[in-house]
Amino acid sequence: MRTIAKHSAARDLNDDCAVLELGTETLILTHDTMVEGVHFLPGQSGEDLAWKLVASNMSDLAAKGAMPLGVLLAYQLGSDDADFLRGLEASLQHFGAVLLGGDTVSANGPRSLGLTAIGTATHCPVPSRAGAKPGHGLWITGPVGAALIGFEALKTSSGDSSFYRRGQALLTEGQALAPLVSAMMDVSDGLLLDARRMAEASRVTIAIDRNAVPIATPEQRRDEALTWGEDYQLLFTAPADAALPCPVHRIGTVRERGPEPLLLDGVAPTGKLGFEHG
Amino acid sequence: MRTIAKHSAARDLNDDCAVLELGTETLILTHDTMVEGVHFLPGQSGEDLAWKLVASNMSDLAAKGAMPLGVLLAYQLGSDDADFLRGLEASLQHFGAVLLGGDTVSANGPRSLGLTAIGTATHCPVPSRAGAKPGHGLWITGPVGAALIGFEALKTSSGDSSFYRRGQALLTEGQALAPLVSAMMDVSDGLLLDARRMAEASRVTIAIDRNAVPIATPEQRRDEALTWGEDYQLLFTAPADAALPCPVHRIGTVRERGPEPLLLDGVAPTGKLGFEHG
Repeated sequence: MRTIAKHSAARDLNDDCAVLELGTETLILTHDTMVEGVHFLPGQSGEDLAWKLVASNMSDLAAKGAMPLGVLLAYQLGSDDADFLRGLEASLQHFGAVLLGGDTVSANGPRSLGLTAIGTATHCPVPSRAGAKPGHGLWITGPVGAALIGFEALKTSSGDSSFYRRGQALLTEGQALAPLVSAMMDVSDGLLLDARRMAEASRVTIAIDRNAVPIATPEQRRDEALTWGEDYQLLFTAPADAALPCPVHRIGTVRERGPEPLLLDGVAPTGKLGFEHG
Repeated sequence: MRTIAKHSAARDLNDDCAVLELGTETLILTHDTMVEGVHFLPGQSGEDLAWKLVASNMSDLAAKGAMPLGVLLAYQLGSDDADFLRGLEASLQHFGAVLLGGDTVSANGPRSLGLTAIGTATHCPVPSRAGAKPGHGLWITGPVGAALIGFEALKTSSGDSSFYRRGQALLTEGQALAPLVSAMMDVSDGLLLDARRMAEASRVTIAIDRNAVPIATPEQRRDEALTWGEDYQLLFTAPADAALPCPVHRIGTVRERGPEPLLLDGVAPTGKLGFEHG
């Protein structure tokens, strides 16, 4: 939403979610679109696509500590609609959301699939990526790189591709962490890119200890694991002595904003930090 | 959402909107997707597209008597993004909604644009298309065929195309009518098609008096006006003696369900009734 943000009076459009206070409730709203050939492989099974579409939106809700209510689907009819519906049902059931409605269209060309997810906040203020404070610690809920290994398994048809095809959204962890964190987001586009986004939004510098990051790849592929996305782990900051309610990994520290927003072992990382959306 | 409805436990997916009760509020949610070459002309101005996308969703809210809160945009970057943003700002301001968030993607191929609109109900129960009762009258808020005339003006670059390019959503009328109607929907796909959908959803027969329908076209094009969409007039049923709060046109009567769901001057209409989505 970067393009739009510059031209609109609406708030915090760089965040993945919108927060809407309504009576006594606080709603969390998010929308993800996936385009064939950009966000998924041409020919990938409809069941996989549905799961990915749901999981990526649920992960946005997880990072807000939200409880899912339901989804609206924007579906472009394709060749494997029955597969898609099977994956949609399975994933919605898995994450505890219901299909509320949406729109179905016929079209030629690459398929474009959209999902709007709606949840309610379980804790206010709702965590955002903009709250990281100097002196706080930086944690991640689990290893990065699992989706990378799964993606390669799918492309080569050898090995276990489930970490790529059946991404998890850490809704329970997000709800447990929400009252304790100063900033939180999901790592959907690569740890380094997302950490830099958190640093920019919070106007701080985030320093990551490269070897402290848990990875699901062999050690020699550590750099790839740190820049690949779609693992949907939660990245968050909290006071260094916070009593955290679930297994997490301390991977860095928040500092006053210096010349660089992101440091990896004390140096600004160069090259591709993650998956940059259009 | 017909395809999905068969496979899902969620309710009333054939309706254009989802109704979600949340604490003391009732939310109305709707999502429309428009695909280049299907829902809009290739090359049509981004400003027009933005307006149409917003107006069509706002019209869905209008039919529920809802007050708009905001929208989430799924935007595929194209060649006229600045135009699109101009139209988006103008239309959101016009209809009283704000941009809450969304997703922007880059992709090749025909553009696909989606919008989720969120509103709050001003009257409960929220009007649906399924409530028409035998003996009730059928009304429409204004003429059909204006968008058809505007579309032709745009294609031929002669005459006033504003009724096509700047569709109105009758939010004020919808809110005023909501407490009085037994069924309501917007006429977005053609009067005859939408009236049949109302009859099917309500399990009644709807009888329309052909010459009572106000039209914006010359008389010899009456049949086209009755099957063209995008005028966003509100079609509703109410007790025959209802004191209606805004200027409306009585165009028919609800009957017990007979062999045909829709009668035009006593006969089931044949041929194309409107714009059938994929």
